[in-house]
Amino acid sequence: LPSKTPNMGTTIFTVMSALAAEKGAVNLGQGFPDFACDPRLVDAVTDAMREGLNQYPPMTGVAPLREAVSAKIGKLYGRHYDPVTEITVTAGATQAILTTILAIVHPGDEVIVLEPCYDSYVPNIELAGGVVVRVPLTPGSFRPDFDKIQAAITPRTRAILINSPHNPSGMIWSREDMLRLQEILDPTEVLLISDEVYEHMVYAPNQHWSAASFEGLAARAFIVSSFGKTYHVTGWKVGTVAAPAALTAEFRKVHQFNVFTVNTPVQHGLARYMADPTPYLELPAFYQRKRDLFRAGLAQTKFKLLPGEGTYFQCVDISGLDVPEKHLSEAEFCQWLTTDIGVAAIPLSAFYGNGFDQKVIRFCFAKKDETLNLALERLAKL
Amino acid sequence: LPSKTPNMGTTIFTVMSALAAEKGAVNLGQGFPDFACDPRLVDAVTDAMREGLNQYPPMTGVAPLREAVSAKIGKLYGRHYDPVTEITVTAGATQAILTTILAIVHPGDEVIVLEPCYDSYVPNIELAGGVVVRVPLTPGSFRPDFDKIQAAITPRTRAILINSPHNPSGMIWSREDMLRLQEILDPTEVLLISDEVYEHMVYAPNQHWSAASFEGLAARAFIVSSFGKTYHVTGWKVGTVAAPAALTAEFRKVHQFNVFTVNTPVQHGLARYMADPTPYLELPAFYQRKRDLFRAGLAQTKFKLLPGEGTYFQCVDISGLDVPEKHLSEAEFCQWLTTDIGVAAIPLSAFYGNGFDQKVIRFCFAKKDETLNLALERLAKL
Ligand SMILES: CSCCC(=O)C(=O)O
Ligand SMILES: CSCCC(=O)C(=O)O
Repeated sequence: LPSKTPNMGTTIFTVMSALAAEKGAVNLGQGFPDFACDPRLVDAVTDAMREGLNQYPPMTGVAPLREAVSAKIGKLYGRHYDPVTEITVTAGATQAILTTILAIVHPGDEVIVLEPCYDSYVPNIELAGGVVVRVPLTPGSFRPDFDKIQAAITPRTRAILINSPHNPSGMIWSREDMLRLQEILDPTEVLLISDEVYEHMVYAPNQHWSAASFEGLAARAFIVSSFGKTYHVTGWKVGTVAAPAALTAEFRKVHQFNVFTVNTPVQHGLARYMADPTPYLELPAFYQRKRDLFRAGLAQTKFKLLPGEGTYFQCVDISGLDVPEKHLSEAEFCQWLTTDIGVAAIPLSAFYGNGFDQKVIRFCFAKKDETLNLALERLAKL
Repeated sequence: LPSKTPNMGTTIFTVMSALAAEKGAVNLGQGFPDFACDPRLVDAVTDAMREGLNQYPPMTGVAPLREAVSAKIGKLYGRHYDPVTEITVTAGATQAILTTILAIVHPGDEVIVLEPCYDSYVPNIELAGGVVVRVPLTPGSFRPDFDKIQAAITPRTRAILINSPHNPSGMIWSREDMLRLQEILDPTEVLLISDEVYEHMVYAPNQHWSAASFEGLAARAFIVSSFGKTYHVTGWKVGTVAAPAALTAEFRKVHQFNVFTVNTPVQHGLARYMADPTPYLELPAFYQRKRDLFRAGLAQTKFKLLPGEGTYFQCVDISGLDVPEKHLSEAEFCQWLTTDIGVAAIPLSAFYGNGFDQKVIRFCFAKKDETLNLALERLAKL
């Protein structure tokens, strides 16, 4: 079998979680909480199953969930998405992004990604036969470099993929950033894929600026979000795409022949649970406390803290650490940290196509305080 | 936006279910049960959620489910699939098939489909940039025509997609059919995608012959199955792919960047529920009784019954019916039947690329007896 994807490896998150499990390390690698979700959310899904809501839902998602998402976007970001023609429920954000790309990227089309970026983006573009155009975020600050973005746009550019709050860096695009992007895209027909899965993990004084709030962006945007991250159920695999009707129509043509639709009782459970906004309104304070605890602990170590404005990730610079010679690359360092120190992390090089190594690694702090404290204890030994 | 998929419409199942709902018709169109699943299955998923099994599972699926599937295939079909390297859990069979095709079909590769076939196959091949080669099943009998299959194979053929028990016809490939296919593929490098989602709906004296049971087929096969159909939970969207390790490795490279993985508690619930084989062992008798009830009723009408060896579908010839002139195509007939008679069905033309119209429509009999009786009452008026 001649591999169609000879350069595609196993996602770093799988690799590091497997290594963490094998070595019994504290897993601060892959992004997921180690604490329980709200039992009322479990009850809501159980109720739906017991009510017999177990057969195919509509291809686009169950109406109550599409309506709840539309209402939330309207309230938080001020744009009305028609739940019938503009909101689609997906089997997680990753599926939403691949499906969007398959639906809009013609072979040979260019798609701009801002590096570092989540490791599915580039393979997704390649699977659609698109050409990946990599634009670096500003080294050190991870801020968008709009001159570079502007320069990357050509008549072949089909889309640009952005992600704020940003995985892995935790940076958040400001209102001015969004306006600047809007200005650049305004004279073009470039589509926007806006990955906003960490929209509710934003720490004061920062604020999430959704593409939905900017007419010039929203009119060309597929806005992707996720329930797993917001509600502490990353394993449930449900997300959404909001996009103007014409874009949604193209999306759904592919969606129906990919997953067709998404788990019915989970959708109903989420819709009912969403009736109360408290859980997502309280999420920033919940995670900000964990971030502060984790940062305070790291400040006592030789890791150099990078800023963290949002997400449940904290990046640190490892260049000041005394480490055995052979563990000098980020990837080798993370292996060694997992195996010898007992804390798993993700090398930032995994978020770059060329493996760019800036001596920065990423921790996930979506963990019980005791997990964070145990990890900090081990890291303090370095 | 220049549509990338200008010829892709909305799947017929969505269209007919929406029409049935709008008109209050008995929905014998889209294939799904209207009765409850086993409450113990619901309890098993609830237990998993309450135990906190709500975060990302392994990318390949949770170990107990992969092990349970491997054990079942071993017992029923006599081939051992390594649960670690050869079984992958998917977000339903449709996702499994698209992912397989994206993983193996290079642009320009030919893929053979046997028409009539499920309506995602052709768009899936097109999304991968493949060339669809349509080979008709024998008109009337829906049996494979091996001379035509043989003749369709070229040096550019990457794969052939088969489906037994067959949707929409209910036909089942015999042992001899599978051996004949094996003989044809033997001198080639053509891969096999075997859609076996109706494997447990097989009526005496017929028997399901899995590609897993034929070494020459299994060595080149992606075998796709589904839990939703077997356990009366079509809305749960969980399936599996079994394939030799080298093929599975290619599959997973794409799978991880499509859905990444599948709902954790549902996987655990299914794994626990599968410990008892009774539900799937009793399924043939359960559905055979419904099939017999439905066929007996239809025998009293002007619909001409076609054979039905498996699946929960029954096809009928409509050419003997007195229908208003303007409702003569299968598609128009189904519209009219839904709207004016109150019973939804699926036109077989929807399973052909060129809309071939042989005056046959498909009913789904996965319904409560009272639903079937109500439909029969309405159909008897014709
Ligand atoms: C889909 S596994 C990765 C989870 C995640 O988003 C991350 O760790 O970056
Ligand atoms: C995915 S909706 C269609 C269900 C089905 O398999 C059918 O009705 O043929």
